[in-house]
Amino acid sequence: MQLRYDRRVRYEDLISQPCSISRPLAVLGDRWTFVIVKQAFAGVRRFEDFQASLGISRSRLADRLERLVEHGILSREPYKAGRVRHEYRLTEKGIELYPILIAIRDWGDRNMAPDGPPVHYRHRGCGGEAHVRLECERCAEEIGARDVEASPGPGALAA
Amino acid sequence: MQLRYDRRVRYEDLISQPCSISRPLAVLGDRWTFVIVKQAFAGVRRFEDFQASLGISRSRLADRLERLVEHGILSREPYKAGRVRHEYRLTEKGIELYPILIAIRDWGDRNMAPDGPPVHYRHRGCGGEAHVRLECERCAEEIGARDVEASPGPGALAA
Repeated sequence: MQLRYDRRVRYEDLISQPCSISRPLAVLGDRWTFVIVKQAFAGVRRFEDFQASLGISRSRLADRLERLVEHGILSREPYKAGRVRHEYRLTEKGIELYPILIAIRDWGDRNMAPDGPPVHYRHRGCGGEAHVRLECERCAEEIGARDVEASPGPGALAA
Repeated sequence: MQLRYDRRVRYEDLISQPCSISRPLAVLGDRWTFVIVKQAFAGVRRFEDFQASLGISRSRLADRLERLVEHGILSREPYKAGRVRHEYRLTEKGIELYPILIAIRDWGDRNMAPDGPPVHYRHRGCGGEAHVRLECERCAEEIGARDVEASPGPGALAA
């Protein structure tokens, strides 16, 4: 199924398209945004630490963090350090982004890691590697792109 | 595990970081790039059709397509239509991006689809919905971000 957009759609307007891939991308599909989210999962919380750990400019970082807060992916919480400052924490909605990052990692390990995985992501306790598996919720079979067909759902009629 | 980047890293330099999330994002984590890939999965192949189906400028589209070709995600193949033109097709490496898109869709359906899923992605034949499941490859348990711990792998030592 091909989705047709208005010819003059701006990137941010993807958020109103009847497509649950486009809508998140309107928020996340921006340079640095996923990388910021990744750093948040790695435990980075403070503006200065995001800035020091990435090569991003302060204004761009502020813009990205604000958008992530606005969309409820990060929360901005005060902490005391001399004067009051803020730290950014993943909300539950943010934490649910994790399978996307691991799906990216799986692809990266397969296609862009000639020396082997730079990082292991292991199940705490058990020690097995965490992976993303595309599967059918009915028959539980592992499937690929060619096994899937798209059709309009209820949210398409509403749009 | 926090990854520290060189303070002046440019976005494209993420490709050389010892991180299999950052490396793909250096290629894909750009406005429109994932959306172009999504359209390719929906069957769009021709420059004019990408352009007509998205709101992107011609120069930006050309730039994104070229980068996807350069990284082996799309192939550029001639077809005859009056004068010879080209179409862009997902390679095997490109097709392997599909679980990332479905992971984004899963999150979008949960968090940005108040009227229900705009699109069903169903297992051909069986008819069950396709979903991404984050699981442990050893014990096969479904896991979440809090169940995973990161540690350096062989590719970190090489870098």
